[in-house]
Amino acid sequence: MDLSDQALRAELMATAHALADAARPVTLAHFRDMALSADSKLTDGFDPVTEADRAAETVMRDLLARYRPFDAILGEEQDYRPGSSGLTWVLDPIDGTRGYISGTPTWGVLVAVNAGGAPLYGIIDQPYIGERFAGGLGEAWLKGPRGRRPLKVRRTRSLDMATLFTTFPEVGSDDEGAAFRRLAGRARLTRYGMDCYAYGLLAAGQIDLVVEAGLKPYDIQAPIAVIEAAGGIVTDWRGGPAHDGGRVLAAATPELHAQACEVLAGH
Amino acid sequence: MDLSDQALRAELMATAHALADAARPVTLAHFRDMALSADSKLTDGFDPVTEADRAAETVMRDLLARYRPFDAILGEEQDYRPGSSGLTWVLDPIDGTRGYISGTPTWGVLVAVNAGGAPLYGIIDQPYIGERFAGGLGEAWLKGPRGRRPLKVRRTRSLDMATLFTTFPEVGSDDEGAAFRRLAGRARLTRYGMDCYAYGLLAAGQIDLVVEAGLKPYDIQAPIAVIEAAGGIVTDWRGGPAHDGGRVLAAATPELHAQACEVLAGH
Repeated sequence: MDLSDQALRAELMATAHALADAARPVTLAHFRDMALSADSKLTDGFDPVTEADRAAETVMRDLLARYRPFDAILGEEQDYRPGSSGLTWVLDPIDGTRGYISGTPTWGVLVAVNAGGAPLYGIIDQPYIGERFAGGLGEAWLKGPRGRRPLKVRRTRSLDMATLFTTFPEVGSDDEGAAFRRLAGRARLTRYGMDCYAYGLLAAGQIDLVVEAGLKPYDIQAPIAVIEAAGGIVTDWRGGPAHDGGRVLAAATPELHAQACEVLAGH
Repeated sequence: MDLSDQALRAELMATAHALADAARPVTLAHFRDMALSADSKLTDGFDPVTEADRAAETVMRDLLARYRPFDAILGEEQDYRPGSSGLTWVLDPIDGTRGYISGTPTWGVLVAVNAGGAPLYGIIDQPYIGERFAGGLGEAWLKGPRGRRPLKVRRTRSLDMATLFTTFPEVGSDDEGAAFRRLAGRARLTRYGMDCYAYGLLAAGQIDLVVEAGLKPYDIQAPIAVIEAAGGIVTDWRGGPAHDGGRVLAAATPELHAQACEVLAGH
């Protein structure tokens, strides 16, 4: 595998978009379907998994079996598929299932590919709006209702000028929630509930920080690729790699990132 | 003024849609504009008012001056304009300005018309998605990326099966926040951050409850018209009229509404 090979790079990008394209009609087929059944995946919590979630992962896996049969697959809904190429596709067919079953337009289909470790390329796709954030392998762009444009983070350098997003106000554990609230207390504006769409907004230069906890690799690999390609930074809360999930901090600038790490650590 | 007059009803509906149509390009012209200036309207808080907000109200007022010169206008951004027809247009050019400046697609243009008191007809329009919720004068529908369909609330009757939305976790005052958290503790799922879009989701049968506090008449008159036309209920937290704003409770069914009123009152 030679990642400087332009043909391979083009094939990976084309495959990523083919997967996201294929997931669109499948996820939309059940979106705002009042008969939607939301199973509970965890007995101790509310984590709905829908028919659409499973079907969308299946359609993406079927495409990979045809186009990239030697790549591994790590997906939310089905078992890990080992590969021999050194590449792994990381799939979250519906990121933000609670938002999905509520009818909000801020869930997304997440597709990423890595060569072990950090993602090479990622897509955050919002099928209802028809909006796609893509980044990595030398490109970073948004295509949506108003056409295509480059993605670039904005240059906010001070926490008191920053807009901060997370999905759930409680964030994670009690300690994680307390750390988040310290940070929110220092930010200019804090907003909630956008699921993976918030990472797209950061890459698009609309917001400055996203903080989450308890993430899985498939929740964050696509956002990492998109945000880094747009000039931003995604790490865990201590500045280490975030591609395995857990506590995630995405920031528009190194200055903001450093300030947020300090506040989250309680310094 | 005879509100059973079909020609008048048709004219009011056509005017409402003409206003929302006119506001779309004006609000979109500045949406996700990185040079956007967010003035602070209140010295003690963060309440951004954008150029787009002012310009969108102006374009709607200009249309009303031409088409409905004898109607009153109550808008967020400019002074009350008295009228002589008995009808009042209630305009919020950008509901959810914090969401707007953050680039989220869940702010809206709100247009309502009333004959004193409760609204006759209302529109919640989301220009970026190209999605419009409309209701009153015998109709209730959504037009969006997947075409037009009727709006109808769902039949959730029990709080423990309900999905609850509000925009800010703190909701309003400390007491209001505490009341909200009591309710959230009883609901199946609580989500945040959707601005006026949450009212549209309730009318569309996707969610069951929306609770807010500190609203102005222009924040709630359009949602009232849309939700009531879809079969839902909108009142204050005690079951009284909500069209003057303040504390608002929107519910899909009378049973849910009664349970939510009780919990919010602390019973």
